[in-house]
Amino acid sequence: MRKLLLTNAGWIATPERPGENHAIYRIHRRPADTIYIEGENIAWIGRYRDFAGGRNIEKYDLDGMGVTPGLIDFHAHPVFAATRETEYEMRTSGASYQEIAKSGGGILNSVKKVRKASQGDLIDHTTPFLDSMLAHGTTTLEAKSGYGLTPDSEYKMLRTIIKLNETHVLDLIPTFLGAHEYPAEFKENHEGYLKLLIEEMLPTVARENLAVTCDIFCETGVYSVEEAERVLYAALQHGLSVKVHADQLTNVGATKMAARMGALSADHIEFIDDEAVNQLALSGTVAGLLPVAAHFLRMKEDPPVRQMIERGITCALATDFNPGSAMCENMQMAMHLASIRFRVSAEEALWMATAGSATALALKDRGWLGPGALADLVVWDIADIQMLTYHFGVNHASKVFKRGNLVAENGRAIV
Amino acid sequence: MRKLLLTNAGWIATPERPGENHAIYRIHRRPADTIYIEGENIAWIGRYRDFAGGRNIEKYDLDGMGVTPGLIDFHAHPVFAATRETEYEMRTSGASYQEIAKSGGGILNSVKKVRKASQGDLIDHTTPFLDSMLAHGTTTLEAKSGYGLTPDSEYKMLRTIIKLNETHVLDLIPTFLGAHEYPAEFKENHEGYLKLLIEEMLPTVARENLAVTCDIFCETGVYSVEEAERVLYAALQHGLSVKVHADQLTNVGATKMAARMGALSADHIEFIDDEAVNQLALSGTVAGLLPVAAHFLRMKEDPPVRQMIERGITCALATDFNPGSAMCENMQMAMHLASIRFRVSAEEALWMATAGSATALALKDRGWLGPGALADLVVWDIADIQMLTYHFGVNHASKVFKRGNLVAENGRAIV
Repeated sequence: MRKLLLTNAGWIATPERPGENHAIYRIHRRPADTIYIEGENIAWIGRYRDFAGGRNIEKYDLDGMGVTPGLIDFHAHPVFAATRETEYEMRTSGASYQEIAKSGGGILNSVKKVRKASQGDLIDHTTPFLDSMLAHGTTTLEAKSGYGLTPDSEYKMLRTIIKLNETHVLDLIPTFLGAHEYPAEFKENHEGYLKLLIEEMLPTVARENLAVTCDIFCETGVYSVEEAERVLYAALQHGLSVKVHADQLTNVGATKMAARMGALSADHIEFIDDEAVNQLALSGTVAGLLPVAAHFLRMKEDPPVRQMIERGITCALATDFNPGSAMCENMQMAMHLASIRFRVSAEEALWMATAGSATALALKDRGWLGPGALADLVVWDIADIQMLTYHFGVNHASKVFKRGNLVAENGRAIV
Repeated sequence: MRKLLLTNAGWIATPERPGENHAIYRIHRRPADTIYIEGENIAWIGRYRDFAGGRNIEKYDLDGMGVTPGLIDFHAHPVFAATRETEYEMRTSGASYQEIAKSGGGILNSVKKVRKASQGDLIDHTTPFLDSMLAHGTTTLEAKSGYGLTPDSEYKMLRTIIKLNETHVLDLIPTFLGAHEYPAEFKENHEGYLKLLIEEMLPTVARENLAVTCDIFCETGVYSVEEAERVLYAALQHGLSVKVHADQLTNVGATKMAARMGALSADHIEFIDDEAVNQLALSGTVAGLLPVAAHFLRMKEDPPVRQMIERGITCALATDFNPGSAMCENMQMAMHLASIRFRVSAEEALWMATAGSATALALKDRGWLGPGALADLVVWDIADIQMLTYHFGVNHASKVFKRGNLVAENGRAIV
């Protein structure tokens, strides 16, 4: 087993280990300068002078830089076959979603291209974005299907994600999003597609372990709350956990439904009402915050984040990286935009991007630093975590360690 | 003289050469893949097969990547002695400018620290930001004084900028901003400070060639239009050109005054009225757009950019990089935020960040690519310039050439 001693950290800042009494939104500054890693896990953190020592231990000098847990991007659509910059320009010059969709844009534009792409094409297209994520400090990434919308193309996407998880150093967590939209061929036959989802796709996804979670876009004009409940209920019956794209553009009650179903998270939630906040507070469902998408779509509305923090609701932060509404794979930008839009502090933003996101993915072995945690960590070239939200538009990640290995340095993944 | 042939460009996109008939906001895609550089200037652009050849020519393969002119940051405050992340957190949690100023924050906070700093301190603090700018594609930078507000500390700042211009590969253009605020010691004696500015500082700045331009913060509670006119008139008499921080927070008529005085640019201009737009259209004064500051300050207001473009007003784009209201040195972020906030296209944003900014600095030898232009250029790892506004939060600059030399690569300045 490889033994690695990271010495000379300027500071180590981390959420506390999850557990009964761990403090939500608290970033703990550990009185330590040294991290001892055995294999993929952290074995010890403390002061160098207190380190017990041992044989065959590699040393790595952090040169006074700061350390946090690796960032966790709990909501992303990184697998697609083509970017959609033309639609961005159309929206900039005032086109509506409807106009863009009419001209062949929107989710169904990505669907068209993903259906035609081979797994190899998808891997080639996705890998540079994964490298970039890593270089910006992301060490765990949720990755959704949802640009296929046929059984075979959805399985192709999920198998691509599983393959990338095996071959790329990033951990990818596959989520089945067959209910991202209604495909064109079922435009007049929603019942037919729901049947396909529930009777064919979900059983196959579960049986073949293609995903651990089922997601759905519950929104006016897409999946209604009633339709979403049917799909998610079937998912739960097949042993998948569930999550929801909820109340992003209108208040349809999707967040309340998500809480009722015991969803891992209700994401976007720009249009939730007080009752939905109450439901989130009573349930274990995480509030999934996606400020990059709200920024990219020039939305005026934001979720009631300060209210949710005061109510003790766990908030998580992600990029929502996708070619239509959030063309940014950098979690540092998500933290900055969270501070601008939601008025969260750097501590709160970092907590949401680590411990919060780990909770949203039901992962207990990461999102914090301490003995037993995965050795996923970012070495930052900044004096304090306040710089993560304040000094924006540049990459502060100097080095990234994934499962104990140095995997990115100076803004480049080490491939 | 060094001769360098850049071959295999995927595309070359540039504003046209300034002149009587050059098209404003037009980005020209040159039917070319090769750039021939002699010394510091571009000698020829064309297809490789048409290159005349010659002896002792170094070749450099651009590997199919795209080329634009180097970005020009026409409005920035890069010289300061300490960052102000604590104030950012205060503003995030709801503190007003007044409250921040009372607690020792604001411009006068930077003033306190710059006064104490030596030229060496300032150079050490500024250099990493200049390196970062270069690595993000900026090749010319305006740099203001204004954190000294005494004769000696203002001269110290300007001499620091001149020294950095000599030692750093970036071109720095010094601007005298002794009228950035009223210093604390003249809080009750504005007339005394105006006298110091007009009778002592401006003559010295002009005589010792410490700056080419004089700037002023014309705003409610800072310098009134009448005071600004007196200072700028004196600057003009001493042979300096002038520019104005105008109508950023309230409509005080500063933009009209700037146009009347023949200012190079009126900057910020969030609160200008139709009459001010008319004045800009009739004058040669450039509309200076600073969306990074508006974003950082969470402003709702924006300048009427589409109206100004339609009126044929030259707009320029800059970062406004400074520790209080725009902690981002990356011109790519300025272009992205311009597209989000002002609804400008990628072509318009790039034009403003090159040709527009060159106009705002009265520089004719850069901001475009063609024979005779400085060989300042950015090599982009993107398929098209549309990615500059669409795909944000990451650094697309693969290589940066300054006066014919490769000075940054893969996000790092070559020091």
